[in-house]
Amino acid sequence: MVKFLKQSLASQLDVDLMSEKCGFALEQLMELAGFSVAQSISKVYPKKSNSRVYVLTGPGNNGGDGLVAARHLSHFGYKPKLYYPKQPKNEHYQRLLKQCFQCDIELEPDLDKGLDQCDLIVDALFGFGFKPPIREPFGNALKALGNTKIPIVSVDVPSGWDVDNGKVDDSCINPEMLVSLSAPKPCAKFFEGKYHFLGGRFIPRFLAKEYDLDLPEYPGSEQCVLLSKI
Amino acid sequence: MVKFLKQSLASQLDVDLMSEKCGFALEQLMELAGFSVAQSISKVYPKKSNSRVYVLTGPGNNGGDGLVAARHLSHFGYKPKLYYPKQPKNEHYQRLLKQCFQCDIELEPDLDKGLDQCDLIVDALFGFGFKPPIREPFGNALKALGNTKIPIVSVDVPSGWDVDNGKVDDSCINPEMLVSLSAPKPCAKFFEGKYHFLGGRFIPRFLAKEYDLDLPEYPGSEQCVLLSKI
Repeated sequence: MVKFLKQSLASQLDVDLMSEKCGFALEQLMELAGFSVAQSISKVYPKKSNSRVYVLTGPGNNGGDGLVAARHLSHFGYKPKLYYPKQPKNEHYQRLLKQCFQCDIELEPDLDKGLDQCDLIVDALFGFGFKPPIREPFGNALKALGNTKIPIVSVDVPSGWDVDNGKVDDSCINPEMLVSLSAPKPCAKFFEGKYHFLGGRFIPRFLAKEYDLDLPEYPGSEQCVLLSKI
Repeated sequence: MVKFLKQSLASQLDVDLMSEKCGFALEQLMELAGFSVAQSISKVYPKKSNSRVYVLTGPGNNGGDGLVAARHLSHFGYKPKLYYPKQPKNEHYQRLLKQCFQCDIELEPDLDKGLDQCDLIVDALFGFGFKPPIREPFGNALKALGNTKIPIVSVDVPSGWDVDNGKVDDSCINPEMLVSLSAPKPCAKFFEGKYHFLGGRFIPRFLAKEYDLDLPEYPGSEQCVLLSKI
């Protein structure tokens, strides 16, 4: 039913959304994307048993989605902490981080400690723009995620996977949940976790048609929809 | 349970949210506020029987919330149209309007025709910043809303009401639903409609405390909460 949006087209879609063509601001799209991640998490992982969420945020837009998700999770009653080793200097990201701090979300730069003291991991390291090589400290972080038994929720793309071709080797992470944004990327075909959600309910119909996407119907006012449950 | 946020404090809260103190961008807050209005509507007015929504948008931020709500309603399957006689020239509003157009939302500048052909009215003319006098064409628009039997949903403040003291005379509009944003304004005490929702789930706890707000718990990941149902 859903078609896949390969890496090059995902980049083009992003440009179309934020150019004259559609007129969106990054702040709007990121707010809706991050919210949809938080909502997906709230549907699967009860805050009582999974309150301590460790959100690993990368240096780009995927990380920004993670910051927004962390803030909404805090409003929902979860207790997120952030691993955010490479913080972009630009105002947008500084603002997103401040918003987290003002919601009592703290940084936990000690990865081992963070993983040791959490019930759930959000992988917001790399998104559809990812291309190797992986620089440190993200290589180490992905190694740790590859070894943990704590459930991982990946935002849009399981970090370290090839966006179009999936896992590159056996050391790759195996998220329990994947929240695809806008439309699933081809690597989602190789996702073997339990819950595949789609979020980012903001693509105008004409644009979905132009990109030949066959997006599913979202229920009611929901910002996410469960695509499959293995 | 909920305390009221009078006009002067509502303005100050807005400043705090978007200043260094919290670091929000207008685009983020408006997206969440407008979404919460659309979600509230979807909970009460089924799209099958109330698909034709006429959104009356004023020249300020309340109008901006209306534009965002219209876009989300379109994603939910409603068929909104806009009455938007005074369109601000600044980029933010131009973008919000373009986003509506790209979701197949049209302008209906003929107020009589718009009211005649709709199932539901969204009043996003004036918000917490409102001070008289009312300039045309909004005086005429409010007169028409005062006489209609089509249900009206007011965004944050029933337009034309005094923000702190409620109705100014018998010609004032009587919305069936009120969606207060952030916290109810004092005029909400005089609201006699059926559904009073609270939306705008973005106030950090420390700020709610600082403003002595006693905000209700939102259920799950919902962006609105029903405060009373008469």
